[in-house]
This record gives sequence, C-alpha cells and structure tokens, in this order.
Amino acid sequence: METPARPVFLSRTESSEIILQSDLNHLGHLFGGRLASIIDKTAAISAIKHAHSAVVTVSIDSLIFRRPVRLGSILTVKASVNRVFNKSMEVGVSVYSLPPDGPEAEYVCNAYLTFVALDAQGKTRELPTVLPETMEDKRRFAQAGIRRENRLALQAQLGKK
Amino acid sequence: METPARPVFLSRTESSEIILQSDLNHLGHLFGGRLASIIDKTAAISAIKHAHSAVVTVSIDSLIFRRPVRLGSILTVKASVNRVFNKSMEVGVSVYSLPPDGPEAEYVCNAYLTFVALDAQGKTRELPTVLPETMEDKRRFAQAGIRRENRLALQAQLGKK
Amino acid sequence: METPARPVFLSRTESSEIILQSDLNHLGHLFGGRLASIIDKTAAISAIKHAHSAVVTVSIDSLIFRRPVRLGSILTVKASVNRVFNKSMEVGVSVYSLPPDGPEAEYVCNAYLTFVALDAQGKTRELPTVLPETMEDKRRFAQAGIRRENRLALQAQLGKK
Amino acid sequence: METPARPVFLSRTESSEIILQSDLNHLGHLFGGRLASIIDKTAAISAIKHAHSAVVTVSIDSLIFRRPVRLGSILTVKASVNRVFNKSMEVGVSVYSLPPDGPEAEYVCNAYLTFVALDAQGKTRELPTVLPETMEDKRRFAQAGIRRENRLALQAQLGKK
Amino acid sequence: METPARPVFLSRTESSEIILQSDLNHLGHLFGGRLASIIDKTAAISAIKHAHSAVVTVSIDSLIFRRPVRLGSILTVKASVNRVFNKSMEVGVSVYSLPPDGPEAEYVCNAYLTFVALDAQGKTRELPTVLPETMEDKRRFAQAGIRRENRLALQAQLGKK
Amino acid sequence: METPARPVFLSRTESSEIILQSDLNHLGHLFGGRLASIIDKTAAISAIKHAHSAVVTVSIDSLIFRRPVRLGSILTVKASVNRVFNKSMEVGVSVYSLPPDGPEAEYVCNAYLTFVALDAQGKTRELPTVLPETMEDKRRFAQAGIRRENRLALQAQLGKK
Repeated sequence: METPARPVFLSRTESSEIILQSDLNHLGHLFGGRLASIIDKTAAISAIKHAHSAVVTVSIDSLIFRRPVRLGSILTVKASVNRVFNKSMEVGVSVYSLPPDGPEAEYVCNAYLTFVALDAQGKTRELPTVLPETMEDKRRFAQAGIRRENRLALQAQLGKK
Repeated sequence: METPARPVFLSRTESSEIILQSDLNHLGHLFGGRLASIIDKTAAISAIKHAHSAVVTVSIDSLIFRRPVRLGSILTVKASVNRVFNKSMEVGVSVYSLPPDGPEAEYVCNAYLTFVALDAQGKTRELPTVLPETMEDKRRFAQAGIRRENRLALQAQLGKK
Repeated sequence: METPARPVFLSRTESSEIILQSDLNHLGHLFGGRLASIIDKTAAISAIKHAHSAVVTVSIDSLIFRRPVRLGSILTVKASVNRVFNKSMEVGVSVYSLPPDGPEAEYVCNAYLTFVALDAQGKTRELPTVLPETMEDKRRFAQAGIRRENRLALQAQLGKK
Repeated sequence: METPARPVFLSRTESSEIILQSDLNHLGHLFGGRLASIIDKTAAISAIKHAHSAVVTVSIDSLIFRRPVRLGSILTVKASVNRVFNKSMEVGVSVYSLPPDGPEAEYVCNAYLTFVALDAQGKTRELPTVLPETMEDKRRFAQAGIRRENRLALQAQLGKK
Repeated sequence: METPARPVFLSRTESSEIILQSDLNHLGHLFGGRLASIIDKTAAISAIKHAHSAVVTVSIDSLIFRRPVRLGSILTVKASVNRVFNKSMEVGVSVYSLPPDGPEAEYVCNAYLTFVALDAQGKTRELPTVLPETMEDKRRFAQAGIRRENRLALQAQLGKK
Repeated sequence: METPARPVFLSRTESSEIILQSDLNHLGHLFGGRLASIIDKTAAISAIKHAHSAVVTVSIDSLIFRRPVRLGSILTVKASVNRVFNKSMEVGVSVYSLPPDGPEAEYVCNAYLTFVALDAQGKTRELPTVLPETMEDKRRFAQAGIRRENRLALQAQLGKK
C-alpha cells in the first residue's frame, strides 16, 4: 500500500541566522562552507518533515554565491521538497541576506539538494510523493524533473572516475 | 519627526534546528541553556528586523519547559515583536518540537524577552512603534502591556538587591 | 529509608569564562542567550553534585541583565542548591563580570532555576533534602520557599495555555 | 609587471579530521553540510597559499557523496590550485575516508571550487598563474578549462534568474 | 615605582565543566587536547586576575593524564598564580573529576603553565610579585622556583633546534 | 603471532587550519589551549593510522610556544609515530605558521605525545612496532628512546604525588 502524496507546504522550512565574527575569515567575508552548512541543515529539516524519518544528503548541486554577506547581516534560508524520484527527493533552497542597517533583504543564492530517507538499519526507504498545489509548487515540480535529467547526465559523464 | 509604526509581520521570524548529541546531556536530555540560547537568537533577529539596528537583551521572562525534547527532534521557534514601550520592545516567542518519527509537533514553551536597540556608539535608540493588524496581533499587544506591569512590579520588588 | 540531608557547601559550584568575539554580536554586546547558557550549565553542575544523578532543567526564573558585559571580561558564575521541594530543587546563581583592565568585578545578574533529577530510565527520582548551615544558607532556604509560591501562582495563572 | 607563475606544489594542502558524534545526525550519518564545510576550508587554505592574500569562495561545483562516512573514521582532504582564469582560480579537492578499524581509505568525493583573491579594501586582485609541472598537474590544468566552459554555460543558462 | 605584591587568593580561579559526547572520541574517551584546552583557559583567567591585563601562554609543562574521564563526569579545574619571575608568571592547575553517579571526585592531573602579560601594543609588561600567605602558598612558591630551573635547563638543552 | 612492523610513512598526518577570531583572545593572541588541542587531534589521527584502533592520550610533553600566531595565519601541523614501547607509542609533531600576507612559514613549536591503543572494551592493546626507513625516521626513533628515559625519570620523581 502506498502512502498518500503529501502537499508541499508540509515540508516548508525557514531558518534565520545572524552572521557573527566566527562565521567570517580575517578580512570579514563569510565562509562559503559555513553558508553551505546552513543550507544543508535547512534542506535536511525540510526533507525530514516530508519523509518522517532520518535523511542523508546524496548531492548538492553547484552553488554560486552572488553577493557577499556582511557581519551582522540576517540570513534567511527557505526550503521545501520540490519532487520525489523513486527513493530520492529534491529539496530547493533560497537564501536572502538583510544587511545590519539596510532596509531590504538581498538575494544571495539558490541551492538544490538531493536526499534519501533511511530506516533505523540505515537502509533507504520508500518516500511519499509530493503533491504540488500552487502554481509555484507546480513550476518547481516541473523544473526538478529537468534538473534530475541534468544530474543523471552529469553523473554518467563522471562515472568512469 | 517620528518614524511610522511598523506592522507586526515585518518582524516575524522563524528558526528551525535539529537536536543533536552535542545539544544533550549524557542521558539524552536537551540542556535548558541550549534552548534559552536558541530562543534568544530568534528573538534578537525579530527585534533587529523591527528596529533596523543592533539590539541587546535586557531581560528574559521566566521559562517553563513543559515537555522534554528528544534527540533527532526538529525544533521550530517563532518570534515577533509584540509591542514597543518608549525605548524597549517585547518579543514573544513560541517553541514547538517535532519528534524524529512522530506525526505531530508538540508545544514546548512560550517566552517573552525585552530588547533595546543601540546605535554605533552603544547608546539606546528611539524605536518605531508596532502596528498590530490581526486579531492575534492585537491580543498580544494588549497582553504585552499586562506583562510589562508585572515586570516593573517584579523589578521594584527586587530593587533593594 | 530516606537519604540524609546534604549541606549546601556540597553543591557549591563556580565557573569562570573569558568573553570572546564569538560570544558577542557585531557591535560587541554579549548575547543574552549565551549568558543564559553559561548560567544553566553552572546550575546543572550544582544540581548534579547535590543529587548524584543526571538532572534536567524544568524552569528558569526571569533574568534581568543589569550591566553590559564587554569583550575580554572574566565572567564568574556561582551556584548552589537553595532548597528541595518534593522531587524538584531550586538552584540559585549569581553572576559577576571583571572588565579586562578593571580593578573590580561588577554585579551582572541573579538567577533561580528549578531542576529535577532523573534515573537511567528518565524517570524523576527522590532527592535528599538540603541542610542549610550558615546564616546565608538559611536566608536563601527561606526565600526559595517564597519564590516557589510565586512560581506556582504564575503557573496556575498561565495554566489554561 | 606580472608576478611569475607559481608551481602547483606550493598550493598543495592536506587536512585530516576525525568524525565525531557532533558531526553526525541522530542515526549516525555525517551531515553533507559538515563535509562541504571541511572541503571549503581546505580549498580556501590552498587558494591562500597560491595567492598570498585573503580569498573568498565564488562557487562550489556540484558535490556527489558516493559513500557514507562512519563515526570514528578519519577524513583526509587534499586540495591544490588547478588553474587561474583572469582574476579567479579553480581549486580541486579529493576526499578519502579511513574507517575506524579498516585497513584501507575509501574514496568519498571530488570537489571543484572557485575563489577570488581580495586586497585589504575587499577588491579583487590579480593572481599569479599556475605552473603545472607533473603529468597529473597538466591533466588537471586541461580539465579545469573544460569545467570552466561548463560553469560559464551553466551561469548563462541560469542568468535570467 | 613598583606595584605592590598581590596575595595568591586574588588569582584563585575555579572552573567546572560537564563532559559531553562532543568532548569524546568515538569509543568514549575524553580528548587530551580538550582537557589541555580547559586547563589553559582556567590558567589564563588566573593569570589575568593577577596581572589586570591580557596574557599569552608561553609554555605548558608536561601533562600526564592519570585517570580516564567518563561521559557525564564533572570536571573541576582550580588554578592560581604560584610565583612571578621578572616578566613571566607560573600558574599551577589541578584537575579533579566527579563520575556521573559516583560519590567522590578523583584526581586527574596537575599542570604548570607560564604566561606573560601584554599591553595594548602587544609588548610584555612588568608584573606585580606574588605574596604567598598560607603554608600551601609558600610551598608552591618554593617549588615554582625549582620547576623554573628545570624549564631553563630544558630550554637550553633544546636550544639548538 | 606478532603483527609485522609498520613503516613510519603509514602514520604520517598533516592538518591545516586558518586562525580565526574565535581562536584568539581579545587582544588577538592565539590561545595556547587551542594550539594544544589542534596538536592533540593531529597526533591522535597519526596514532590511529598506526594502530588501526581507537587511541587515548596518556601524556603531552612540555610545549614551548616560540612565536606568536596572528589572525589569518595558516597553521600546518605534521605528525608521525616515532617509536613504540610495549603498549604505548610516541607521536612527534611539528607546527609551522604562514602569516596571512607573508612569503614564508615560520616555526612555532615541536610536541611529543604518548598514546595507548584501546579495544572496544577499553582495554589497552598490543601495538605493531615502527619500521624507521629514512635517516630522519631513524634519528627520531633514537631520540624517542632518550625522551622516554626522561619521561620515566620525571614520573618517578613526581610519583609520590
């Protein structure tokens, strides 16, 4: 018996962080790895909400940091599950930064991560499918299919490694 | 000239955390201080969004942890500015916990914190007032006034210290 | 058979910390949540010394931070168990800060926390009572009773939540 | 006047980490974001050695984690600068994991990151070119050119965003 | 003009820590480096209390860990300045561990560290001498002289390095 | 039956770190304890590579920090197992620091640590001996014998404690 499809809003997750000295290099630039780490945490929470079980990151699509993030900025990270493929799911993430004294949050980057769900023995589990409800949900559902094609092509290309 | 009142939704903040081994004591209970720290971080972000400047915590009202939080749970912390009093503002916080395998998030605690905003010289700044729009906003606005009375009474009582 | 009452000095605990950049926001103010976290850690150690078992924080009374704490300051946190009530105990904490170049430690805040002790199954355990020996011990023992009355009243008032 | 080309070995960097409880989720799987963070740190050190100045991560190519990493494993991360393109440089990273009781390190993933170097005012700086000396250096130099073509194509494709 | 000698009790410092999962390797043993780090922090606080200025560690005498420290143990670290030699001071540290369920704290190790005090320009400063008051203070003062002889001999022996 | 001797290169370990604000005191000096912690981590990884099992630090020989380490410096720590004595092994460590804008890495300190290997029950295990191959390996093997004599003499001297 299949579990019923779950609407996107059930996996919607938001995380906010203040950028501190300990997140920055000695000239005051946010570490790319620190941002990747916040992105992965928020995406994992979204995946857990969809799967109701532990998850593990299988891949992180390429990250392009489009804007520097300054000390004291507030980072807002939003994630939701875009689509399920057999036993894996794509989580989409968007990151915005509000400067410490600025009026407007600025776009920093998008990210797409793939997760599998695991049972207590560490084996991959079946996943409920995603029910896209809004226009935006449906656009992301469709684009997730295209990105998956690209990912499979990329892995085939790297496969001899 | 006064800055215009700012609607509550502009300070609305959400933060999500996965509870890890490093957040727990050796028998697996979340440290109260770790929870207080997550609450303060989220409340501070909400206060910064309202004030557009750095803030500092003046007080944390009493915290009562109503439910244990288990390893692997997802903690969701929501905060918004309830009301401004002269140069201080009350931020209200609610905390929910989703068990790692459970269907339903459970109520953990509420918290009320007071912040002041500071300028670059560390002096307290004027704050824009809060514009409560929804029924819920207005209920919180009213209750914040009662809590402030209690806080002032409590401080007067402790004042000889 | 009851365990014998334990004198206050057996739970007396002191903890010292240097305030670093990573404890501060971007304008150099100690996070309230960081201070709450140090207070909870020291109080928990005091409660463990009294109970000889794992403990969990049930509540933290309201915290009022009376003085800013600067970078490089040395924070001294002192805790001891004031009194036992059935299966819970109140720990009293006082916090002082020595500025990096200053001659005198300054008062920062007091705190009162309630803990229960747990056995390996996570069930609450009986606690030995406290034996207040000095005048100061006895004053705190008496005041803990008053605070408990207030806490019960506060919880009753919030109980419909 | 141009700075002379710098041989690859000058940027060669190795980093070793033991995987601890605090790096894992509650079922014992290494966080993808933790691994991304170690990769970025090691790659940044390699870029700093080449540039003799502060650097900032511009992009991280897609990461595919090919093998789970267990508690107690030793992670070895190797990085070197593959090639310089005008004001950016590609750093190649490979990650291996030695299980706590195992005889053989296992391949975990490759990564390619792009960095720019910054001066004290935060402006991008000219970079010395890379002098590939060994067969392996030359192979990576050539492949870095292909990856750069792909990256530019990918960014053009995402450019309307 | 010389600053007056300062009694030992003014530098007396105590620090307490609970040993958590994140302090242990994957088989549950406290990292030696974690213990060294707690020892150095407590000793530095003691040195700052004596010198009323920033300090920097010059050396740590050999550390011999005489007893394993278990998860959930409470570590108590006590430090005080034993003696001043021109511009450096010796801080003595003793470490005890209370097992999570045990009645008695156990001796873990002693440590002796040497610090210099620095002014805001990072230059070494004159130090007030130590006034040993109790029998124990005087015994430590005398033994610090012997350890200093040994240290100078050891450094002379290693000097060609 | 004895396990065959293992060549030194199998335990060779390198670790690189960037020195950040969170590693420094408020006047910008690296904490001695932070350095000791990095040294112990790298030495433990080297010991694990030699022993193929969990290890625990028994002692750290005296550390003399010969040069201050500045913000933004890159610390390179190299370790290898010098010699095995019955059930313990000596690991030698050397630490170099590359200033953020400087051309040359500078010598910071040497360190010698002693580890034992443990089985899953926490009992000490037999160790394979070390096979020194190069001239340098052999020099370190011989000097490890001398340091061991000194260590035993030192412990005998401290033994009454």
